Amino acid sequence: MMETRQIKRQIESLAAYDTDDIFNNDFLLTWDHDDDQIRAIFETAQILRAMRRDNISCKAFDSGLAVSLFRDHSTRTRFSFSSAANLLGLSLQDMDEGKSQIAHGETVRETANMISFMADVIGIRDDMYIGKGNTYMREVAEAVQQGYEAGILEQRPTLVNLQCDIDHPTQSMADALHLIDEFGGLENLKGKKVAMSWAYSPSYGKPLSVPQGIVGLMTRFGMDVVLSHPEGYSVMPEVEEVARLNAETSGGSFTKTDSMREAFEGADIVYPKSWAPFKAMEQRTELYAQNDMEGIATLEKELLVQNARHKDWECNESLMKLTKNGKALYMHCLPADITGVSCEQGEVEASVFDRYRDPLYREASYKPYIIAAIIFLSKFADPAEKLSQVLSRKAERIL
Amino acid sequence: MMETRQIKRQIESLAAYDTDDIFNNDFLLTWDHDDDQIRAIFETAQILRAMRRDNISCKAFDSGLAVSLFRDHSTRTRFSFSSAANLLGLSLQDMDEGKSQIAHGETVRETANMISFMADVIGIRDDMYIGKGNTYMREVAEAVQQGYEAGILEQRPTLVNLQCDIDHPTQSMADALHLIDEFGGLENLKGKKVAMSWAYSPSYGKPLSVPQGIVGLMTRFGMDVVLSHPEGYSVMPEVEEVARLNAETSGGSFTKTDSMREAFEGADIVYPKSWAPFKAMEQRTELYAQNDMEGIATLEKELLVQNARHKDWECNESLMKLTKNGKALYMHCLPADITGVSCEQGEVEASVFDRYRDPLYREASYKPYIIAAIIFLSKFADPAEKLSQVLSRKAERIL
Amino acid sequence: MMETRQIKRQIESLAAYDTDDIFNNDFLLTWDHDDDQIRAIFETAQILRAMRRDNISCKAFDSGLAVSLFRDHSTRTRFSFSSAANLLGLSLQDMDEGKSQIAHGETVRETANMISFMADVIGIRDDMYIGKGNTYMREVAEAVQQGYEAGILEQRPTLVNLQCDIDHPTQSMADALHLIDEFGGLENLKGKKVAMSWAYSPSYGKPLSVPQGIVGLMTRFGMDVVLSHPEGYSVMPEVEEVARLNAETSGGSFTKTDSMREAFEGADIVYPKSWAPFKAMEQRTELYAQNDMEGIATLEKELLVQNARHKDWECNESLMKLTKNGKALYMHCLPADITGVSCEQGEVEASVFDRYRDPLYREASYKPYIIAAIIFLSKFADPAEKLSQVLSRKAERIL
Repeated sequence: MMETRQIKRQIESLAAYDTDDIFNNDFLLTWDHDDDQIRAIFETAQILRAMRRDNISCKAFDSGLAVSLFRDHSTRTRFSFSSAANLLGLSLQDMDEGKSQIAHGETVRETANMISFMADVIGIRDDMYIGKGNTYMREVAEAVQQGYEAGILEQRPTLVNLQCDIDHPTQSMADALHLIDEFGGLENLKGKKVAMSWAYSPSYGKPLSVPQGIVGLMTRFGMDVVLSHPEGYSVMPEVEEVARLNAETSGGSFTKTDSMREAFEGADIVYPKSWAPFKAMEQRTELYAQNDMEGIATLEKELLVQNARHKDWECNESLMKLTKNGKALYMHCLPADITGVSCEQGEVEASVFDRYRDPLYREASYKPYIIAAIIFLSKFADPAEKLSQVLSRKAERIL
Repeated sequence: MMETRQIKRQIESLAAYDTDDIFNNDFLLTWDHDDDQIRAIFETAQILRAMRRDNISCKAFDSGLAVSLFRDHSTRTRFSFSSAANLLGLSLQDMDEGKSQIAHGETVRETANMISFMADVIGIRDDMYIGKGNTYMREVAEAVQQGYEAGILEQRPTLVNLQCDIDHPTQSMADALHLIDEFGGLENLKGKKVAMSWAYSPSYGKPLSVPQGIVGLMTRFGMDVVLSHPEGYSVMPEVEEVARLNAETSGGSFTKTDSMREAFEGADIVYPKSWAPFKAMEQRTELYAQNDMEGIATLEKELLVQNARHKDWECNESLMKLTKNGKALYMHCLPADITGVSCEQGEVEASVFDRYRDPLYREASYKPYIIAAIIFLSKFADPAEKLSQVLSRKAERIL
Repeated sequence: MMETRQIKRQIESLAAYDTDDIFNNDFLLTWDHDDDQIRAIFETAQILRAMRRDNISCKAFDSGLAVSLFRDHSTRTRFSFSSAANLLGLSLQDMDEGKSQIAHGETVRETANMISFMADVIGIRDDMYIGKGNTYMREVAEAVQQGYEAGILEQRPTLVNLQCDIDHPTQSMADALHLIDEFGGLENLKGKKVAMSWAYSPSYGKPLSVPQGIVGLMTRFGMDVVLSHPEGYSVMPEVEEVARLNAETSGGSFTKTDSMREAFEGADIVYPKSWAPFKAMEQRTELYAQNDMEGIATLEKELLVQNARHKDWECNESLMKLTKNGKALYMHCLPADITGVSCEQGEVEASVFDRYRDPLYREASYKPYIIAAIIFLSKFADPAEKLSQVLSRKAERIL
């Protein structure tokens, strides 16, 4: 009862946001969407979570497919997408490229339509090559838009970016929702210092979408966002520009440093994570385009050598002591490379990771709700009214 | 409201058909079924499509499995089957032979029963070897029939042929429904000329089930069906016999020619598509049975050389000009080999394909509804009454 | 109507059992659970089967995931789990380790939580290495328990053992339910002689979980359980100890022999099946741990030679004649190695298998219901009341 009243209040506050632009639209980059939409997603995610916790069915679909297309390994995001689809009443249908070929141009256009006759949402992960993933998603979006306008598709499936070369919006949004809950509200994030820092990993070629997603999103909330990495590990300049503009508008700041210590100094939140240098990833994309496997092998070797010069970029206890009261919130998109656990020397000292395990898992737990919220808002012109309807139905999730 | 009244009228017209023979039966070849059943499938498919378009839930199952078994790559048919299952309330469970072995004889009988304890439908694609696919489906059907009669299975799963060596009934039925909609009714197909023509493709060994399915079905509607191919590209003689008998009964015609021009001359509809010579495919089956991999490699080389002699069998603008008012409806089961797009030289000129892209996609969009209709009619003795019930429930697909 | 009254009576009899210990618990070994729980599972399975047969929807979940993790090939168990999930309203989400890495320690803990945000049940098959499978399941169970207690997971997913190195509880429970139905009640099993016998197979390294599961379970019902195998084919001593204690308590017996004839003599039930020697499997686990592939190849060769010495361990007509009235019930978990059918020389003579095909398939048909019953009892504190609710809802499975 208490909870239901609380949920009703949340629904009322959702009604205040203008979500017209997310309705019938895709979700590819957080910076494509204005603050109202971002906040509406947070609210909706929290409402859905509260409803499920109260054993209230969140089904808004009686049938319909949620199509997933993963061009890279995935456990977390795969299960998050699957969970979100199930929560809303959609059935997952994986588009396995091993089983069926997807390519570019004509084939993308055609396949996008062929899989969409009963698809309400398409989730894509394509983060392997700089300059490719997001472009591919836009190609698919354009194809289904044309199909919808031509009357071939009876509904326009929403595209959800489940990680591309530029952004990982469902990750950064889940991370932000974690912060909102940890700090007791979005308004409390203002003025908080977050260190998005490179960290050493023995592996190579990790995507840039997480650090880019974080600086591209957290700068909107008036936070002091510091991006730190060794020389040569820059992210995409366009995303830095987004972060700079966001910071200006929100009254926060976006700064860069090549010192992990400096970034951690007084930080409220630290997000130490390995990634590959932007320029090297561009080079890799070109080598692949030329099918130059020898060049790729050489590049990989060089990058591992370059990485190894920065083994001191580890989130350890002594660095954590520099943070605000020595108690910054440690974040990671998981899995982390934990020194002495998953590798000899990695991104984070085992004792730090251990201390933050529960918050880290909780951080991950928001992703299914973020995805469900994005789907919900893209499908209903008046989401608050629809959520009220869902609530008043009093259908139980479990008998 | 208007739409609902229209749907009710369609349901009334469905009630006029005798569907006894499709009830509790399989759907393996269109020519196994009489006209009433074929028409009832078209009607049901259209009713389901109209209902979904009006946001009416089509669920007839509260739970139950739709088992899919694909022995060949598939995107379109896989998603069509998945969509149909979901539309009616069934959950897809793929039987992946990589994960579990299916073979012949005892194993088929056993596995067919083991996967069917809660299966309402089994969809199979097995089109690789002449003389094998359809036989395999009948083996599975016999096994579940025995299991049902012995009281092991509490329901008899319906088998749906999702493409075999002989027929591709869900494709040809979707193609026919496309024609019905394009020409404004089944009765308007009478007297229309359709050219089912071989076309050049740089690949080898494409199944014969599409051309066979087309001549085996379209001849029922009083159409003038012309099958054209270069010498040596004959289809199965049994299917030609079916086409001949159909044409006799329906008042249409079935003719053959080795000239693509002749076939296109005055045609209302053209369906240019590559396939492998029947006799070569028979030979391949034997070579496989003997595990003669060298023989297969030699055969493949010979067939590619043979194919290459017929590069002029391309559906191009000059051939299209020969058709009725130069405006025949171009059809294809997709994906097509498009000259200069998906290959250097292929089945169709790019400008022709481009002009017909929307109709081609629409053609494909009927398949999920055809499959759903087949499932529906095989499960309900009085489908019209059941559809009325579904309609009167007023359950929404999306909230 | 009649049936509904019968189902109501069964629900009343279920209410008499104390199922507190299975509620919110895992199901890993049958001997972890007392008689009330085992009987409650049988009752619930029968109620669910009767309800489904009467076209009554058994859905207890409106949404939620059933996660499956198969570390070995599987058709029967995969479809059984999928069917059970679907019957209750859960959606299957397979955790494919090819697509995502699961390992040990930190990774297990993390992945277990990451896949469980909306999981109500996790079914695991991990039977390849002695000393590993069950341990792995307990690791996963501990991880989700911690996650639940820490408030990360909003529900505690139940773990169901779909076959480990020690037990195959859903198989042995399905086998027992088959016996209950064949002999007209659990009480009628008392005093019946069951021969769990090794049999020859040309393959190598078959799991011990089936014979272990059978002697660990059937000894609870006052049966005379004989375990027969050639010298050197012992099962785990801990499980033999379980069987001995069970027999003492139940008033049955547990004996061993190295003669198949002796085991079959006067038997009411025979279960001839190949398995690998426990000690050899322990050795294999160690060789794998040392990555000693040569050692494994040598061991395999030795085991095949050892097996071949016992080709006379075949369930043939002359052995069957020794059983009670020559008509013992022949059982197998399937697939069986049938002499002259699936192999040259195997576990069972073709004519014996043929005669028992229907009962064998029926035996397998209980597994989905056993799994569904386990899930049901683990989720509802008062299962009888919940089943009454399900029944009174009068929702149809098929319209």
